Amino acid sequence: MPHITPLNYDQASAAARDVFDEIKQLRKVDDVNNFWKYLANHPSVLRRTWDSLKQVMAPGALDPLTKEMIYMAISMSNGCDYCIKSHTAQARAKGMTEEMFEELMAVVGMANETNALVAAYQVELDEALKD
Amino acid sequence: MPHITPLNYDQASAAARDVFDEIKQLRKVDDVNNFWKYLANHPSVLRRTWDSLKQVMAPGALDPLTKEMIYMAISMSNGCDYCIKSHTAQARAKGMTEEMFEELMAVVGMANETNALVAAYQVELDEALKD
Amino acid sequence: MPHITPLNYDQASAAARDVFDEIKQLRKVDDVNNFWKYLANHPSVLRRTWDSLKQVMAPGALDPLTKEMIYMAISMSNGCDYCIKSHTAQARAKGMTEEMFEELMAVVGMANETNALVAAYQVELDEALKD
Amino acid sequence: MPHITPLNYDQASAAARDVFDEIKQLRKVDDVNNFWKYLANHPSVLRRTWDSLKQVMAPGALDPLTKEMIYMAISMSNGCDYCIKSHTAQARAKGMTEEMFEELMAVVGMANETNALVAAYQVELDEALKD
Amino acid sequence: MPHITPLNYDQASAAARDVFDEIKQLRKVDDVNNFWKYLANHPSVLRRTWDSLKQVMAPGALDPLTKEMIYMAISMSNGCDYCIKSHTAQARAKGMTEEMFEELMAVVGMANETNALVAAYQVELDEALKD
Amino acid sequence: MPHITPLNYDQASAAARDVFDEIKQLRKVDDVNNFWKYLANHPSVLRRTWDSLKQVMAPGALDPLTKEMIYMAISMSNGCDYCIKSHTAQARAKGMTEEMFEELMAVVGMANETNALVAAYQVELDEALKD
Repeated sequence: MPHITPLNYDQASAAARDVFDEIKQLRKVDDVNNFWKYLANHPSVLRRTWDSLKQVMAPGALDPLTKEMIYMAISMSNGCDYCIKSHTAQARAKGMTEEMFEELMAVVGMANETNALVAAYQVELDEALKD
Repeated sequence: MPHITPLNYDQASAAARDVFDEIKQLRKVDDVNNFWKYLANHPSVLRRTWDSLKQVMAPGALDPLTKEMIYMAISMSNGCDYCIKSHTAQARAKGMTEEMFEELMAVVGMANETNALVAAYQVELDEALKD
Repeated sequence: MPHITPLNYDQASAAARDVFDEIKQLRKVDDVNNFWKYLANHPSVLRRTWDSLKQVMAPGALDPLTKEMIYMAISMSNGCDYCIKSHTAQARAKGMTEEMFEELMAVVGMANETNALVAAYQVELDEALKD
Repeated sequence: MPHITPLNYDQASAAARDVFDEIKQLRKVDDVNNFWKYLANHPSVLRRTWDSLKQVMAPGALDPLTKEMIYMAISMSNGCDYCIKSHTAQARAKGMTEEMFEELMAVVGMANETNALVAAYQVELDEALKD
Repeated sequence: MPHITPLNYDQASAAARDVFDEIKQLRKVDDVNNFWKYLANHPSVLRRTWDSLKQVMAPGALDPLTKEMIYMAISMSNGCDYCIKSHTAQARAKGMTEEMFEELMAVVGMANETNALVAAYQVELDEALKD
Repeated sequence: MPHITPLNYDQASAAARDVFDEIKQLRKVDDVNNFWKYLANHPSVLRRTWDSLKQVMAPGALDPLTKEMIYMAISMSNGCDYCIKSHTAQARAKGMTEEMFEELMAVVGMANETNALVAAYQVELDEALKD
């Protein structure tokens, strides 16, 4: 027995199809990623996730590529393979060069090392950083 | 008995003082953060960490502010309080506006939500994203 | 060279077989899950894990289905694929409906988002929640 | 310089006050928790988080107490101190007894132990659990 | 309202006192650590945790100091402050020198960096390491 | 489109080949692990990671096998499958017996359980462990 199966457009409910249509239109793609097809099993989760993501990732004070790289960095730290691959593909589509990718990787490595060192050494907050 | 105590310049070894001097010079500050004072107990860890961090955070294909925001996002996902506060202070010093901060927070929230949803739904990789 | 291989009933030690027999009897199944077959390489780990799990998951103030869903939620947050799939199967066998599954997924997503936001904003504890 | 400061009703924007009013009305409380006062710095994050949380935690196929206990379990696994304390207070207000709390703690301990063991042993998925 | 309060010997149940007595006798200490005083609220969790921990940390193929350092490393990676401080104290009591501590810290930093890099690069398993 | 592809010796840059040569010489192996072949896409990340790892894992106050087992324990807690398998292979090559492996697994399980319990119970630090 599978854990849960992805739903294609034909298998999805009307409410889920509405979300699929919005994603395809906004992203100018012919089909949605598997992530959305799994969420289509639960239309209310699908709708809420899409509505939030659309707002959060829209261009604003941070450009879409910077947002994608932040998304990648979090996914790498959390070890979410699917998230890493899908957001890397999107970051590349939005202009991430090989040099930017290399520097992102270096920051991801160092941040996780120093986060662990801060815990290991039990570093107390500097007076200047306190409220 | 304390876990480990931070070392001030006067208490640090010559090897540790060299690192302190480099940090103060590069960052144009009068004193180093507590992080470095804790690492000063172990000069080889201090030296290696500083040498790596200096390279990784230098301006390159990604600007220093973008690197700081990526550092913040990882620290927020890992729940490292000291790291969050110290890197937020550095990001603000490098020009992070309140609007940029707000959008960063929103991405951090969403990325952690969708990372969990990808695991929860056990999303399989799309053919188009495969090697 | 494989990392470690699962042991079937025929390959397991007498001490491991005793645990297998107890699991099969209590759960009314013909064979144990792979988890137990891997642990069978280390009979003392197998015995202690089973004895604890049997006590912890027994019906009590919380019913077995609620316990399974809590197990699922933790496994989803930790990104443990095997745990997610095996505990979802058990939760379904104990009566988890599709509607309950949908709401569980929504809580898992939101809890991970707000956990990250609490870290990101460095929220201080309310006076009313303090000791 | 503080990381970010909580905003009271008097300090919050009109958009944030609207959310505060909704929370106070729905939860029948005189004031909102600190979590919301921190998010009030970023009204769009505040609005989206509240709208989602309100939907997700509403009674449905799972009762509100079960949802709170799932929230607690995730927060405990993630080590989010504020989240643990605030959701435990809410779970108690919704009827969590000491016996239920004890059993929840036991499941949280065991799930984190077995999640680590599954990774440690690199357990492969059983045929019966596969798609 | 406090989350949960620690119980001293005088406040603990007879079942919890039995565990306290065993810990004090085995570890040759006058009082138990706070960890056990919190668990004393839930005697069955206390009993099971102590019985398991006693077995697991007993001298065997790995000496007690090595086991403590492994415990420290995990606690540092998980960011559990209490665990880091209490297990470091125990490791020092069992003979951990400053040089050993320094090298442990270095491994903790590197392992967390390379764990993140493996996820970031999505490294595929070598043929030689496969089953 | 693949996320990133490993580079063999023939495909790697001169700077990357230098690192490959050093690894092969120090470890007395005919080829390097996939980890290094992925990092070869980014020679500066490859060089810095190797230089640090070589120092950190060298024999010192802790012997190389103890360091490998600490690496394994962290990788198991972080759920890094590749890291678990590659460091277990190295630990076995350095003399880890089945009995040592069994005890390591037991510590990994218990440490993750008690780390979660410490968070769950929100254990306050003992006076004797404070600075």
